[in-house]
Amino acid sequence: MRFRESWDEIAPVGRDAGSGGYLRYALTEPELRLREWFRAQADLRGMPVSADGNGNLFAWWGDPPGDTRDGDTGRAGTGAVLTGSHFDSVPHGGAYDGPLGIVSAFLAVDELRAAGASPVRPVVVAAFVEEEGARFGVPCLGSRLLTGEIDPDRAAGLRDAAGVSFADALGARPAGADPALSDRFAAFVELHVEQGRALVDAGAPVGVASAIWPHGRWRFELRGEGNHAGTTRMADRRDPMLTFAFTVLAANKEARLRGAHATVGRVAVAPNATNAVPSTVTCWLDARAAAPETLRELVEAVHAKAAERARRDGTELTVTPESATPLVTFDGGLTGRLAHLLAAPVLPTGAGHDAGVLAARLPTAMLFVRNPTGVSHSPAESATDDDCAAGVVALARVLEELACR
Amino acid sequence: MRFRESWDEIAPVGRDAGSGGYLRYALTEPELRLREWFRAQADLRGMPVSADGNGNLFAWWGDPPGDTRDGDTGRAGTGAVLTGSHFDSVPHGGAYDGPLGIVSAFLAVDELRAAGASPVRPVVVAAFVEEEGARFGVPCLGSRLLTGEIDPDRAAGLRDAAGVSFADALGARPAGADPALSDRFAAFVELHVEQGRALVDAGAPVGVASAIWPHGRWRFELRGEGNHAGTTRMADRRDPMLTFAFTVLAANKEARLRGAHATVGRVAVAPNATNAVPSTVTCWLDARAAAPETLRELVEAVHAKAAERARRDGTELTVTPESATPLVTFDGGLTGRLAHLLAAPVLPTGAGHDAGVLAARLPTAMLFVRNPTGVSHSPAESATDDDCAAGVVALARVLEELACR
Repeated sequence: MRFRESWDEIAPVGRDAGSGGYLRYALTEPELRLREWFRAQADLRGMPVSADGNGNLFAWWGDPPGDTRDGDTGRAGTGAVLTGSHFDSVPHGGAYDGPLGIVSAFLAVDELRAAGASPVRPVVVAAFVEEEGARFGVPCLGSRLLTGEIDPDRAAGLRDAAGVSFADALGARPAGADPALSDRFAAFVELHVEQGRALVDAGAPVGVASAIWPHGRWRFELRGEGNHAGTTRMADRRDPMLTFAFTVLAANKEARLRGAHATVGRVAVAPNATNAVPSTVTCWLDARAAAPETLRELVEAVHAKAAERARRDGTELTVTPESATPLVTFDGGLTGRLAHLLAAPVLPTGAGHDAGVLAARLPTAMLFVRNPTGVSHSPAESATDDDCAAGVVALARVLEELACR
Repeated sequence: MRFRESWDEIAPVGRDAGSGGYLRYALTEPELRLREWFRAQADLRGMPVSADGNGNLFAWWGDPPGDTRDGDTGRAGTGAVLTGSHFDSVPHGGAYDGPLGIVSAFLAVDELRAAGASPVRPVVVAAFVEEEGARFGVPCLGSRLLTGEIDPDRAAGLRDAAGVSFADALGARPAGADPALSDRFAAFVELHVEQGRALVDAGAPVGVASAIWPHGRWRFELRGEGNHAGTTRMADRRDPMLTFAFTVLAANKEARLRGAHATVGRVAVAPNATNAVPSTVTCWLDARAAAPETLRELVEAVHAKAAERARRDGTELTVTPESATPLVTFDGGLTGRLAHLLAAPVLPTGAGHDAGVLAARLPTAMLFVRNPTGVSHSPAESATDDDCAAGVVALARVLEELACR
C-alpha cells in the first residue's frame, strides 16, 4: 500500500506556512484543488464521478453515473456501499480530519482489487462539502442537503465572512434532497481520525463508533455602549466584554458540573480597539453532552448566568441557536458486525460528522484511526503512517464484508 | 461664525454608513482627504503650510515656511503660538475627537481677523498624524516623532494590520525630532471635545485641562493548546480563552478597587473557530490612574491574577508593555491664566493627547468643549453647535491673549 505517497500528494494543499495548519474552506481554491485531485483519483481507477448538485461528489466502482438499468430493480447502483468523508478544514485545522477518510477509501478500493475481490454491490467514494461549517456556519451542510435535512433555499442564502452566499460559491442554487440518489445507498461507513485518546488508552489502531453526542452551536450577542477607555468612569460603563468574560467562565463551570463539553472558541468584538470600551461582543457557544436533556440543561444554565450578568453590566443579551444535532446512535447491528469483524473497540464521540446526518436515513457506521496526541482541529492533530495503513486495511475488510458477499 | 458650514464639509469623509462612526485611520484615503482639506483651508486664509517629515502639517499665520530671518532672533516664526489637533479616528469613532480642534483653530483665526487683531507672534494651526494609534499601535506618534520621544527607526518599522509599515504609508523614513522647528513654538493650546461629563455637571460649555492621567497599553499573549471542542475532555484542555476571560474580570475588579480605569477592548483569537478550543488569545489592557504608583500597582495586580489563572489553566502568559505615557500636569501658569481669562472650570482627564506629549517641551494647555452624553470613541460622541461655537470664541480669546499682546 502506498499511503504516504497518496498523502504527500495533498499535504501541501492549503497549508499555512505560519501555523502549519490548513485553510481548506469549502469551495475555496485549496478545497477546489482537492476536488480536482478527487476526480483524478477516480479517473485513475476507472470510477465515474457523479455530482448531486449540492456540492457533494461520488466516485462509483460499479454502475452509475451511466444510469444503466439494473435487471432486478430497474435502478442502477442500488444497494451501493458508500464510504468517504470531507476535504474542508476548520481555520488552521489538522491534515487528517476529513481527508484521511477519502484517501483511505480510494486506497481500500485498491486493496480490494489487488486481492481480486469482486463486489456484488457498487462501492462509492464520497467527498461531502462544508462538513466543518467553517465557511458558511452550518456543519455537515452537504450531507444535510442530500438528505433533505436543511431547506435548499436556507442553505443557498448562508453567507461567509466576506458576504459570499453558498449559492454563489456553488455556482447554483443547491439541488436539495435527491431520493433517487440517496435511496441507492444501502450503508455508509466513514473512516475518520480519532479526536480523542480512547484508542491510545485501548492500545488499538482502529476503533468503531457507537454514538455521537447531541451537540449544537448557540450565538450570544451582547450589546453595550461603546465609549472611551480613558475617560469613562467604571461605574458609568455598559461593557459587553465583561458579560462575555463571565459567560465564558460560566460555560466552562456548567459543563464540568455535568460531565459535558462547552467551548467558546470564536468571538467578534466591535470596534475592537485598545482604547475603546466595546459596543458589542458576539461569541459562539459550542455545547455537547452524552444525553439530550443534559445538553438542554447545560445551555439553559449558561444562558441564565449570562442573562443575570448582563443585567448587572447594563448590557443586552440575545441568544440564537445556529445548529442543533440530536443524539446519533449508529446502527447497532452494523456497528457490532464491524467491531466483531475487526476485533476493534467500540467508543462514543463528541464530534459531529456527515455519518451522523446519514445515520438517520441508512445503516451507518464509523471507523476511527488512533491519534497519538488526541488533539484535533489543530496543526498538532496526527496519526502514524502505520495506523493509517491499518485503517485502510480495516476499511477494505469492511467494504468486502458489505459489498462482496 | 460658520461652524456648521465648515463642519459639514468634512462630516461625510470616512463615515461608515453602517455604524455612523468614522474610519479615518492615519494616512489612509479618508485621512489623506482631510489633509487636502487642511491645505485648502490654509490656502483660503493665505497661511503657508509646512510639513515636518513626520506626517504632521503646520499652517502659519505669520512667517514660515519662507524662513525669512527675524530681525531680533535671526529665526523666523520664533515665539509662535501653536494650536490644532488630529484628524485620525479610532475604528468607528466619533466625529469630534480630533477634527474639532483643527476646524476650531481655523475658525478662531477668522474670528481674530474679523476683530482686526494683529498678532505680534505667529499663530500656527497643526494637524498631527496618528494620534489614536489605531493604525500603527503607538498613540501620539506624530507628536512623539516631532519631540524626539520615539526613535524614527522604530516608528518607521511599526506596521498596520495589513503589514504596511509607517515608513511606507508616509512615503519615507520619518524625519524625527526637528528642534529648529519645535523650538519656534512658545506655547501649544489644543481644543478637544470632552470625553466625559464633567462640563455637563459644571454647566459650562468650555473647560481647561489640569492634567492627563498616566496611562499605557499592555499586550497579554495567552498560549494554550488548540483542540477539538467536541472531543477534548474538559480536564484535558489548556484553553487560553478561560485565562483571558478571568483576566478581563480581574482587570475590571482591580481598577474599581483603586478608583482607576482598566479596559480590555481589543482581542485576537486563533484559530477563532466555533468548534475549536483556541490555541492563542491575545488581548490588550488599557490602564489609567490619577497617580503613577496606582497605575503601576493596578497593572501588577492584573498581571499577577492572570499569571495565577494561567497556571491553573495550563496556559502560558507573556505581558508586553506597548506604550506608556507618564502623568502630564499642564503648565500651571498657563492653565490658570486661561481659566481666569475664560472664567472656565479646570478638570483632569484620563485621555491621552498630543498636548500631553508636547507639554514636556513647552508651555501647553487644553480647552475642552462640553459633550452632552460624555460618550467618546463611539458614533454617539457629540457636541452642540452652540457649544462648538463657544469653543471657537474661547480659543480665539486664548490666541489673542498669547499671540497679540
